[in-house]
Amino acid sequence: MPIVDFWFEFASSYTYMAAMRVEAAAAERNVGIRWRPFLLGPIFASQGWNTSPFNLWPARGKYMWRDIARACAEYDLPFKRPPEFPQNSLIAARLALIGVTEGWVVPFAKAVYNAEFGEGRDISRLDSLGAILGSLGLDAASLLTRARTDDAIKSRLKASTEEAQSLGIFGSPSFVTEDNELFWGNDRLERALIWARQEA
Amino acid sequence: MPIVDFWFEFASSYTYMAAMRVEAAAAERNVGIRWRPFLLGPIFASQGWNTSPFNLWPARGKYMWRDIARACAEYDLPFKRPPEFPQNSLIAARLALIGVTEGWVVPFAKAVYNAEFGEGRDISRLDSLGAILGSLGLDAASLLTRARTDDAIKSRLKASTEEAQSLGIFGSPSFVTEDNELFWGNDRLERALIWARQEA
Repeated sequence: MPIVDFWFEFASSYTYMAAMRVEAAAAERNVGIRWRPFLLGPIFASQGWNTSPFNLWPARGKYMWRDIARACAEYDLPFKRPPEFPQNSLIAARLALIGVTEGWVVPFAKAVYNAEFGEGRDISRLDSLGAILGSLGLDAASLLTRARTDDAIKSRLKASTEEAQSLGIFGSPSFVTEDNELFWGNDRLERALIWARQEA
Repeated sequence: MPIVDFWFEFASSYTYMAAMRVEAAAAERNVGIRWRPFLLGPIFASQGWNTSPFNLWPARGKYMWRDIARACAEYDLPFKRPPEFPQNSLIAARLALIGVTEGWVVPFAKAVYNAEFGEGRDISRLDSLGAILGSLGLDAASLLTRARTDDAIKSRLKASTEEAQSLGIFGSPSFVTEDNELFWGNDRLERALIWARQEA
């Protein structure tokens, strides 16, 4: 089965839709998905930006919120614009890396995105993340401590982000096939899967 | 019949694909298209940029060329990356405005985009534009003189660009329905047409 790496940044609004759609779309085409958390902040910073281009470029940002509201209606996904954007996704991304190793990244990532963009909640808060972990039957206190203090996890997230940048990734969601073909954006999900299938 | 305004900047690579697809896609859905030339340069300048974001943001630009090559292959459109990007589209845009009034904007605009991105030619050159006008059976010398000197045409292009910006347009192609719903990007063409049909 061909594998596509799904690179996701929790602060990204368009990635909410991709995260909710990727499993069914991949299963339909018999493609495997590897969930790859990373941070866009350091990639934006190397470009000289201190926030999302949606904030630096107001007309683009205004359009983004409208475009996402329309697309969520089309996909039948709940949508509530969170009061703050982008949200600090550092702890959520470290937790997701633990989830990759321990096998719960998919329900965790989907629950985080749903809280953030389906319910408009603040996923930078430890209590929000703890509630999500608890709802998945996980030991929230222990996981949050590891996510805040474990040097190995911190290093893994840095390495993942550097790997993303070296692959040419500049935004989220990004999809990378085994032959290193990059597809960017929720609306490129299907093309990435078709590419992976054709090259397999 | 509902009408969608198709806002196009000749320097825009993604707009090449939209310009080649828009007529058939609109006819299929029984939607009328109004071709609206404008300039992105003044809109980018008001954002503090002196060139295309694809140049200011190199990883995004590198991806754009790859994404367009893939998409053109999918649409069965010729694609040749022009040596210079973005090209100065001022005279081409003024000619297109004359073409709107005189009824030849569609074949002219498609020929310009094809020269630029299908054949990799320089459409800022007056001889390139003259050859295109001539191939359409138009009086190239007279039209080029008007495009370079006619104050009414200069003012119309400025007014169109200001109108685009007031509609929230920040990129090309952009599609605006009669109820002022904005859709941006070649891959939003179909959604704009569906929206226009539903609201009609």
